[in-house]
Amino acid sequence: MTVAFKAESLQPVGAFKLRGAWHRLSALDEQGRQRGVVAFSSGNHAQGIAWAARRLGIPAVIVMPSDAPKVKRDGTLALGAEVVSYDRRTENREKIAAHLAHSRGATLVPSFDDPWVIEGQGSAAIEAAQQMSSLGLDQPTRIVVPCGGGGLAAGCALALPDAEVTIVEPEGWDDMCRSLEAGWIEPVRDDAPETACDALMTPRVSQLTFDVLSNRGVTGIAVSEAEIRIAQRWAADHLRLVVEPGGAVGLAAILSGKIALQPGMLVILSGGNVDPDAYARVLADRESENSTQNADAAGELS
Amino acid sequence: MTVAFKAESLQPVGAFKLRGAWHRLSALDEQGRQRGVVAFSSGNHAQGIAWAARRLGIPAVIVMPSDAPKVKRDGTLALGAEVVSYDRRTENREKIAAHLAHSRGATLVPSFDDPWVIEGQGSAAIEAAQQMSSLGLDQPTRIVVPCGGGGLAAGCALALPDAEVTIVEPEGWDDMCRSLEAGWIEPVRDDAPETACDALMTPRVSQLTFDVLSNRGVTGIAVSEAEIRIAQRWAADHLRLVVEPGGAVGLAAILSGKIALQPGMLVILSGGNVDPDAYARVLADRESENSTQNADAAGELS
Repeated sequence: MTVAFKAESLQPVGAFKLRGAWHRLSALDEQGRQRGVVAFSSGNHAQGIAWAARRLGIPAVIVMPSDAPKVKRDGTLALGAEVVSYDRRTENREKIAAHLAHSRGATLVPSFDDPWVIEGQGSAAIEAAQQMSSLGLDQPTRIVVPCGGGGLAAGCALALPDAEVTIVEPEGWDDMCRSLEAGWIEPVRDDAPETACDALMTPRVSQLTFDVLSNRGVTGIAVSEAEIRIAQRWAADHLRLVVEPGGAVGLAAILSGKIALQPGMLVILSGGNVDPDAYARVLADRESENSTQNADAAGELS
Repeated sequence: MTVAFKAESLQPVGAFKLRGAWHRLSALDEQGRQRGVVAFSSGNHAQGIAWAARRLGIPAVIVMPSDAPKVKRDGTLALGAEVVSYDRRTENREKIAAHLAHSRGATLVPSFDDPWVIEGQGSAAIEAAQQMSSLGLDQPTRIVVPCGGGGLAAGCALALPDAEVTIVEPEGWDDMCRSLEAGWIEPVRDDAPETACDALMTPRVSQLTFDVLSNRGVTGIAVSEAEIRIAQRWAADHLRLVVEPGGAVGLAAILSGKIALQPGMLVILSGGNVDPDAYARVLADRESENSTQNADAAGELS
């Protein structure tokens, strides 16, 4: 059995986010480009926006939590964007970003609640399907996608209408899973546990991403922090890829046996922007890996 | 300045070695295929041979040192090859392999001292040049290549005759560097220090690889073990790639400033088969990185 992995961790900003950013920003008219863009992000979206903005010559302001991983903050600054910090616990990033956008006449680019952004992220699935085809593999029958706000998942669901889509979230942050089951949007609970998946810590999905996934009959799976660490180690050992916790949840669902293998399986490894010290600890601490039920069966695809 | 990295660590066996193996084995006639192949290897060549042999339905025996990294030994066995162990300090692998080949009528496939193998490895440079072209980058003006026996370096030198070729070796194992300087083959000295670059611990290069590199006017550079560890960490942080010590020596030469950046620079990251525990220690121990003179200037290419 061959499993195809789409390594979005190898993108220039280390994550798929430049797809949606590029798609949105390149559609702005001349006046929109001059006035610039504003985004709020835990990091990967920020870098995607900054990357696209620099290439298109558009000024970009990023509203970023003060506790964002240093590598993501530094990466955003290095790409030439302006960074405005806020306190994740006491301040409202939506309000700060909306105020900035209004005062400058700039366009606010949400990280997932935007049809252009969703459509852009879906190009990951289209590209993966083309690559699988050129390698002589079956076309994707099932896509396993990490889910924060649901932009990537919704984009993939729209891009490949014939494939079954399974979203994966960290335990306690499985609000999209619960929402899809309930039939309405359930936010993350106030007592949600700590998670290493900073890229998936979205307190509430959007109506747009929920509707896309709900209408497609998408279901979700939650994985534990230990299962995510096992997946990060497995990706280093067997794929020779550095994958961040939030990028590894789909692989974790496969390795844990929570998703059974099938022909034409495509797993999106959505990002690789790890905190170096935390990543070193994950690789060094080889705790029990008894739950890697599917490990021997999983193949690889570069 | 953009530097192109060719990530051979992402090959199915985690290294470029399947290129030469495939090229040699696919050229065997029907009788040769039935009698099988024998190879001796510290690991990556073994997996390359095993990978190609399985796909071509050819029996393969690999003579491997008893202290080879477990991941390489396991990988070779998992690919269906027979493994024969020897003691690196007391036994002669060439003799063991020659005896096995003779007794079975099998073809001995050297890891670098073979025109087919060299030609096959060179496809890495051809492919990289094509990829650089499709990305709108300058064609390679300089290739930086890790060197053990010199098979990859010789292949790249033949594949891209207009590019300057620089080979890189670990300090103390810089026998090709010294040989190219001397004008004749100098073996590794008996008092060579320990190195983490198991893939580059070749005691003596071959006349064939030496002649190819010497005739092309290739020069070499030696890097320290600390510079190699810095390069491994940089590859994880900035390229999100797991690169083994021997695969990272070219990057180490760039980051240390021993090779100046120039347009059209291509660096081969030749393998990613790390020992998991040793790799975790490298990532955890962030010693002084003062010598990363070129770090800010190095771009990336997936």
